[in-house]
Amino acid sequence: MLGIGFDIAPISHEFDDEIQSRIDNKTKPLGALGELEFLAKQIARVLGKDKPKISNPKLLVFAADHGIAAAGVSIAPSEVTTQMVMNFINGGAAINVFCRQVGFELEVIDCGILQPLEGVEGIIDQRLGAGTAPIHRQAAMTLGAVKQGMEMARARIEHHHQLGCNLIALGEMGIGNTTSAAAIMACIMEMDSIDCVGRGTGIDAATLKRKQMLVEQALHVHESELADPFNILACLGGFEIVQMTGAMLAAAERGMLVVIDGFIATAAAMVAVKINPNVRGYMIFGHQSDERGHCLMMEHLHARPLLKLDMRLGEGTGAALALPMIQAAAGFYNEMASFSDAGIEI
Amino acid sequence: MLGIGFDIAPISHEFDDEIQSRIDNKTKPLGALGELEFLAKQIARVLGKDKPKISNPKLLVFAADHGIAAAGVSIAPSEVTTQMVMNFINGGAAINVFCRQVGFELEVIDCGILQPLEGVEGIIDQRLGAGTAPIHRQAAMTLGAVKQGMEMARARIEHHHQLGCNLIALGEMGIGNTTSAAAIMACIMEMDSIDCVGRGTGIDAATLKRKQMLVEQALHVHESELADPFNILACLGGFEIVQMTGAMLAAAERGMLVVIDGFIATAAAMVAVKINPNVRGYMIFGHQSDERGHCLMMEHLHARPLLKLDMRLGEGTGAALALPMIQAAAGFYNEMASFSDAGIEI
Repeated sequence: MLGIGFDIAPISHEFDDEIQSRIDNKTKPLGALGELEFLAKQIARVLGKDKPKISNPKLLVFAADHGIAAAGVSIAPSEVTTQMVMNFINGGAAINVFCRQVGFELEVIDCGILQPLEGVEGIIDQRLGAGTAPIHRQAAMTLGAVKQGMEMARARIEHHHQLGCNLIALGEMGIGNTTSAAAIMACIMEMDSIDCVGRGTGIDAATLKRKQMLVEQALHVHESELADPFNILACLGGFEIVQMTGAMLAAAERGMLVVIDGFIATAAAMVAVKINPNVRGYMIFGHQSDERGHCLMMEHLHARPLLKLDMRLGEGTGAALALPMIQAAAGFYNEMASFSDAGIEI
Repeated sequence: MLGIGFDIAPISHEFDDEIQSRIDNKTKPLGALGELEFLAKQIARVLGKDKPKISNPKLLVFAADHGIAAAGVSIAPSEVTTQMVMNFINGGAAINVFCRQVGFELEVIDCGILQPLEGVEGIIDQRLGAGTAPIHRQAAMTLGAVKQGMEMARARIEHHHQLGCNLIALGEMGIGNTTSAAAIMACIMEMDSIDCVGRGTGIDAATLKRKQMLVEQALHVHESELADPFNILACLGGFEIVQMTGAMLAAAERGMLVVIDGFIATAAAMVAVKINPNVRGYMIFGHQSDERGHCLMMEHLHARPLLKLDMRLGEGTGAALALPMIQAAAGFYNEMASFSDAGIEI
């Protein structure tokens, strides 16, 4: 193996009966808060049954470039990754608006965009290179880079954990990264690439076809190397996907909740679960993306996304908008009166 | 007619092209914010294209009792309506938690619960009686009461509008009111009562059967009286349903956005649309309820609810949790950078 392990406790079911009984005694019909009741149970398991409180929630956007973008798989060239990173820094992107509104502190991490942004304040430097190699020809990166990326992600999560953060959401930016995510999906779910490749930001039919062929080619080139999840990342991944995977595992290791965004974040989540299945219990899925394939990934992970708004933007937008739902679940669990508090007999 | 009319301007499509072009020039792929883009367009049409801002959002909970509750259609007796109203006043119900969290100011209106709550502060007195008559035997109320309810609701909306509120959400509490709502649904949608009646707060099969029979009986008893929407309310309605209908119409009359909650609020919305179809353009549907029939109502109204969390609680909970999505839509429209702002060329 890679010499990097994650020591994640399985989430505890010790207090399940007590948690359920608290939920059932709230002043509402049994089960009437639907999905929020399942969510409250998960929150109480992870953050503690007595007064689980979301504190200092952070949303990390991981940005990187992809060699395969040069083969023409997107409506936009790789330069747009950097331009959008500047947009994040300047506060003008969708994820900035949503984070300000729902109360997420946003952090932008350069995992390896084409050119480092010299002298720009507010960007965290965790570069693994100047974009990955094109995955349809060679491995995206070395196993050493995978390990380094995971260690950097762990250090960053540890930093936030030290500052009292107990919920982390993960988003990304990287022209070409739906291609990488589709390849990872096809590999882990053992599916035809045609069922995993979607329109990303909105490509036309010809580009879609090329994207499918490139994914197929990538799977073929690396066929003999895809047995373990670290190798899957090295062959098919992206610098941001590696660091998201590491961040998820590191957050679970510290007993934090992890909010997963759309297609690319979910590909990272599938790798994380393959590395250590215990991570799954800490994951909350924010939004069902409109991207083809995301629905199948959700089934694979037995995930029930909180929102279905037909968005397909990434950046963490689907995770950001889920925060009010997560806080509503914790809120009703902590603050609602029980039947006996309210003197109601049913 | 009833001598009460609502003068609602059709929402303007004058600036649709300009609004769409602003949305399309934001730094994101075309259409990538999915439902939030449709919502932003509606908000801009209703509140103005230049910087539409949700201000002083209020959530009104309308409470009343129903004569039909005595026939056994709920898991809870009518007394629970009053107990839950006290729970609202004391801040312990789900709707209190959600309103505090998302930034709705909550107001509780007594439209006619069994007994007035003497000396309790914070409850708005708009009583039309001590519960309606049982609708399977006689009209719920007189046409005079319908008119009075609408006028009181209009006055209350005017009050909030004067204080700068431009978005109103509507919830309810009233043991027995899913029965009334199901009867209204069957009447307006010309459907079999069996397809409109659901389990409400969680009744058993025998109670469900009784509820269906009572709805059928109500429709039969009033058969010749159900030609116009005011009579539908008088025959089958509830005091809270009448006032919600009036509040929706009055809010639209003032150019306010109206956020609709679950099954009962949607029944009121259907009556409101029957009274004046122009009201529909001001309506946002917060949540697809788990209550049987709500999905069909949504289709009838060509509505796409923002959330689907399998809740079936009422109180306005589904409307409350939609506020962050509505603010996200207004937020991205107002605050996101355009491609030219951000210097991005695609």
